[in-house]
Amino acid sequence: MDWDTQGQVPVQQGDVMPHDLGSMEDVHACLAAMPGPDVGAREAAARRDAQLTKPAGSLGRLEELAQWYAGWRGTGRPVLNAPQVIVFAGNHGVTAQGISAFPPDVTAQMVANFKAEGAAVNQLSKGVGARMDVHALALDHPTADITLAPAMTEDELLISMRAGWQAVDSECDLLVVGEMGIGNTTSAAAISLALFGGDAADWTGRGTGLDDAGLTLKAEVVARAVARHPEALADGVEALRRLGGREIAAMAGAILRARSERIPVILDGFICTAGAACLEVARPGALDHCVAGHLSAEGAHGALLDRLNKAPILSLGMRLGEASGATLAIAILQGAVACHSGMATFDEAGVSGG
Amino acid sequence: MDWDTQGQVPVQQGDVMPHDLGSMEDVHACLAAMPGPDVGAREAAARRDAQLTKPAGSLGRLEELAQWYAGWRGTGRPVLNAPQVIVFAGNHGVTAQGISAFPPDVTAQMVANFKAEGAAVNQLSKGVGARMDVHALALDHPTADITLAPAMTEDELLISMRAGWQAVDSECDLLVVGEMGIGNTTSAAAISLALFGGDAADWTGRGTGLDDAGLTLKAEVVARAVARHPEALADGVEALRRLGGREIAAMAGAILRARSERIPVILDGFICTAGAACLEVARPGALDHCVAGHLSAEGAHGALLDRLNKAPILSLGMRLGEASGATLAIAILQGAVACHSGMATFDEAGVSGG
Repeated sequence: MDWDTQGQVPVQQGDVMPHDLGSMEDVHACLAAMPGPDVGAREAAARRDAQLTKPAGSLGRLEELAQWYAGWRGTGRPVLNAPQVIVFAGNHGVTAQGISAFPPDVTAQMVANFKAEGAAVNQLSKGVGARMDVHALALDHPTADITLAPAMTEDELLISMRAGWQAVDSECDLLVVGEMGIGNTTSAAAISLALFGGDAADWTGRGTGLDDAGLTLKAEVVARAVARHPEALADGVEALRRLGGREIAAMAGAILRARSERIPVILDGFICTAGAACLEVARPGALDHCVAGHLSAEGAHGALLDRLNKAPILSLGMRLGEASGATLAIAILQGAVACHSGMATFDEAGVSGG
Repeated sequence: MDWDTQGQVPVQQGDVMPHDLGSMEDVHACLAAMPGPDVGAREAAARRDAQLTKPAGSLGRLEELAQWYAGWRGTGRPVLNAPQVIVFAGNHGVTAQGISAFPPDVTAQMVANFKAEGAAVNQLSKGVGARMDVHALALDHPTADITLAPAMTEDELLISMRAGWQAVDSECDLLVVGEMGIGNTTSAAAISLALFGGDAADWTGRGTGLDDAGLTLKAEVVARAVARHPEALADGVEALRRLGGREIAAMAGAILRARSERIPVILDGFICTAGAACLEVARPGALDHCVAGHLSAEGAHGALLDRLNKAPILSLGMRLGEASGATLAIAILQGAVACHSGMATFDEAGVSGG
C-alpha cells in the first residue's frame, strides 16, 4: 500500500499527462479532451457474447458490464486482474455547524485504521485482490465552512485534483475511489442541490446516524451553503470547489485520470457520486467510463444516480462510504469479465445452439 | 473436481448420517430432526458487530448476513474459506410436450462443458475460490412425462436425494447447489403451482427463451401436470417426486444434508428455489439455513421467494441456472464475513464511537 499523508502532491516532471491540472483552464481542457471507448472492441465483445454456451441474454447485467468493460479496455476479450482501490480523506470546516454524529477527529483516526488494515474496505479489497491506497489530504487544514466561504481556493482545488490524478496507477485495469471525511455528506448534499436543484431536504440524509432534529438542522445548513454560492449552480467545477472538499476533489481528479487512460471506474456511494457528478455537469459524457457500484442507503443517492442515468450493480443497504460498496461490486465485474472471456463458445463445446 | 456421472449413488456403509434416506419415512424423519442455529454464537456476532469501526448499521445487509452465517457456523467470529458449488443434471420426459427452446441433448452437452470448465459457473466458481462438482443423474433415463405419470418412483426419488446428500463435502463451510436440465423450468413451475396455488400462467416463464406461443403452451402443460397429480398439492415431498426431476431432488437432498451439518446454503434461481420450497412446505423452517443468492429474471422467481420470505442478495437479471447467480453471491457473503471477522473494533483502532 502507498500511504500519502501529505496530500500536497506537486505535478511531477516527466509524468505523461495531457494536461497538468495547473489551472482551472486546464481542468476544462482535460474534460474537453477525454477519449471515448473503443467501439470496435465493444462490438467484438458483443459478437463473442452471442457465441457463448448460454441462452442469449441469460447472464443479464453481466453481459452488459462485460461489453462495457471490453470497450474501455480496447479488446473484445478483456481480463480484469489489477483493480485499484483508493480512499481519499479530508476534513470539513462545515462540521462547526454541528451536522455530524461523529467528531472531526474520527477522520484521522480512520485513516490510521485504514493503514492498520482494520477498516471494512481493507477486508473487501483483500477479498477481490485489489491494491488499496489511502491518501489523507491536509487533515490539519479543514476546508472552509461552506456556509461562510468557498470550501477551497482555486489552488487548493487544483492541488487536491492533482493528488487524485497522481494516485491512480496507470497499470491498473479498474479503478474504485472512495472517501473518509466527517461532514462530507453535507458537502455532497450541497453539491447535489447546486447541480440539480430541488429542495435541500430532498438531498440531505442522516449520514453516519443523525436523529430527526440533526437531519432538520443539516438540511438548513445545506440550503444556507448553496444560497451562499450562486456561482456553483449548475457549474460542475465551481460546485466542486465551493461546496466540495479535498477528498471529493481528489476523487474527481482520479476519475478524470482514469478516463484519460481509458481505465473503467466503479463509483461508490453518495459522496463519491456527488464528486463524479461535478464532472458530468461540467462535461456531459464525462462518466461514460463509470458504472455505479451500489445504491447507498444514504437518502439521496438513488436520486443522484437517476440524474446520472446510472443503475447500481448492488443494493445492500450499505452507507459506510470509504469505497466499500464499490469494492464489493468489483467481484461482480470480475465475474462478468471472467464469464465473458473464459466461457467456451457453442462451437468449442459442441453444444447445440438455441 | 469430482465428476459422478452415474447418479446411482448407494448409501455407503460407515457414513455418519442420522437418517439414510432409505425410505419416504426417513425423509420425513430427517426433516423432523433438523438442528437449528447456535443462538449464542449469533448473539456473540451481534455484540461484535456493534464494536466494529463503522457507524451502527452502515454495512446494511452485510451485517445481517454475517450474523446469520455466524449462527449456523457456531462461532461469533467465523471464517468462510471452503465454499462448495454442486451442479446436478437430469433429463425430463416432459420435453416431449415441446416446452423448451433447446433440445434435450443439450443437458449432456452442457455436462461435458462443465467438465471441460467451459460454462459460466466454472468461471464464477474459480473467481470465488469454490470447489465445484457436477453430478449427472441418469441422463439416459429421463423422468416420466409429468403430464402422464409421476416424474419419479419413490425409489428414484430416494436415489436422487441420496445422490445430493452424498455429494456434499462435510468439510465445506458454505454450499451452493444448482442445476442443468432441459425442461426443468416446467417442473419448477408445476411444483410452485402445486405448493402455493394460483394460476399456472403465474408460475410459468420463458425458460431459456420461449416465444409467446411457446409460453402459452408451457402454461397449459404445467396446468395439466398439476391437475394429473392432486396428491402433490401442498405436499412438499410428493410435489418433489411427482412433478420434480432427478436434479431437483438431488438439490433438495444436498440442502437437507447441509442442514444436518449446519452448513449455510445460498439458493440459486427458480428451479433450485422450487426444489428447496418442497422442503419448506414439508417442514416449515427447513430453509432457515438458506439465503436467496439472487433474483432470477425467470418470471415467477420473485413470487416464489416472497412465499419463502427470502430477500435476494443480488438482482442482475440473470436466468442461466447452473448455480451461476448463487455462486456470484458467494462473493458478497465472503465480503460480509471478512468485514465482520477482520475489522478492528473501536477500542482496538482507537477510534471514537458515534
